[in-house]
Amino acid sequence: MKRIESPKNARVKQWKKLLTKKGRDETGWFWLEGFHLVEEAVKSNAPLVELIVDEQTAVPPGWNVGDVPVAVVTEAVMKAVSSTETPQGIAAVCRQLPAELDGVKTALLIDAVQDPGNLGTMIRTADAAGIDAVILGEGCADLYNPKVVRATQGSLFHLPVVKGDLAQWIARFKERGIPVYGTALENAADYRTVRPSSSFALLVGNEGSGVRREWLEMTTENIYIPIYGQAESLNVAVAAGILLYSLRAMR
Amino acid sequence: MKRIESPKNARVKQWKKLLTKKGRDETGWFWLEGFHLVEEAVKSNAPLVELIVDEQTAVPPGWNVGDVPVAVVTEAVMKAVSSTETPQGIAAVCRQLPAELDGVKTALLIDAVQDPGNLGTMIRTADAAGIDAVILGEGCADLYNPKVVRATQGSLFHLPVVKGDLAQWIARFKERGIPVYGTALENAADYRTVRPSSSFALLVGNEGSGVRREWLEMTTENIYIPIYGQAESLNVAVAAGILLYSLRAMR
Repeated sequence: MKRIESPKNARVKQWKKLLTKKGRDETGWFWLEGFHLVEEAVKSNAPLVELIVDEQTAVPPGWNVGDVPVAVVTEAVMKAVSSTETPQGIAAVCRQLPAELDGVKTALLIDAVQDPGNLGTMIRTADAAGIDAVILGEGCADLYNPKVVRATQGSLFHLPVVKGDLAQWIARFKERGIPVYGTALENAADYRTVRPSSSFALLVGNEGSGVRREWLEMTTENIYIPIYGQAESLNVAVAAGILLYSLRAMR
Repeated sequence: MKRIESPKNARVKQWKKLLTKKGRDETGWFWLEGFHLVEEAVKSNAPLVELIVDEQTAVPPGWNVGDVPVAVVTEAVMKAVSSTETPQGIAAVCRQLPAELDGVKTALLIDAVQDPGNLGTMIRTADAAGIDAVILGEGCADLYNPKVVRATQGSLFHLPVVKGDLAQWIARFKERGIPVYGTALENAADYRTVRPSSSFALLVGNEGSGVRREWLEMTTENIYIPIYGQAESLNVAVAAGILLYSLRAMR
């Protein structure tokens, strides 16, 4: 197998395009890197297009990668295409993930969360809390932004994450008798007054402005987390963690 | 007042040094920027050394800044010294904060958390949860790193945050009859088995390796947050939020 040595190689240029939203939209692919993430993709039977390793790195023999092609590149090429400062020697191109949302009983709805770290961390938290799906409304960071992918720590392979119209989803959950809880600072109830349940949807919002008022008017109930000190608010990913773990029925 | 026009001006060079740990250690000062942070510093009577504004910006008349000097700089200078891409036109130099820890009843102890965003977010969360103090063990990111300061959203002005020897602090809390809860994945109890209390210390650890084993052996009890999905773990700042809100006595 011939290794790729030039950062100007056509394949390398194609990979680099995946670091932009435009490039991802055009191809329907995304880029992921580092052992942990690529391993999660392999273990989850994600639709990998190809694996990329540098000369110092081999695909671990235990990985079942089937007939996914493996490209070998120089360390310089890996560095050129990597979205991190210190690439780990392994990366992959993956098709954007299909998502099946029938019968979802618990969901995290996210309105316009723009920080990639926050968005990825919330997907990871929803996974940890055993939530069935995550729905991203308009104005959220792109799910396949490498920083979002990294912050999920692989959880995007574990549960369906879809873009959607939050108004439709709120209505759909309510029709099915599933309560939808918005998060708000005013006209809201202390979150501890809500009894844990095996079906609910939680709606969290933008870092600065919170959940859009329109959506808050559609929810079953709005809740807040009390602030005991002088902080104005909690980080949205921390708040989502506290609420998801409080709302879900214990096992 | 003469405005500063050159990024090579001696004052500008001194400010830039505050973006490095060495520069902060030598002066005992730190740099903060943006309206919200500087306002929090002013409101909290933080020991400001000087305020810096660009030509488009004025110190709001409602702020009580006493005789703290105000330097006016060009937008180019502000951009040169800023730690962010799009500076907000106001910044400040502040003396590193004194901290009084007598009589602390609730504390968050942090072992070697290296990500500045995680560290700052945990300080913000401890503030929100009404915790009395945060103690940073060896190996933590520097409290006065501009990214940490920004992620605290001003909470570093609201509660004492100190560097300390975690072994000593664990011993000290236990001597005072205050339970210390470590976080661990093994040999630990479900966090919901711990009754909320008005005095406790919570010990969280490094993103990859968790709390150092040595410290875990010193705690009163170790606790974990159950993982219901396929995620391997929770982000440390999210975990700290869930635990602090669960452990503290409700009001």
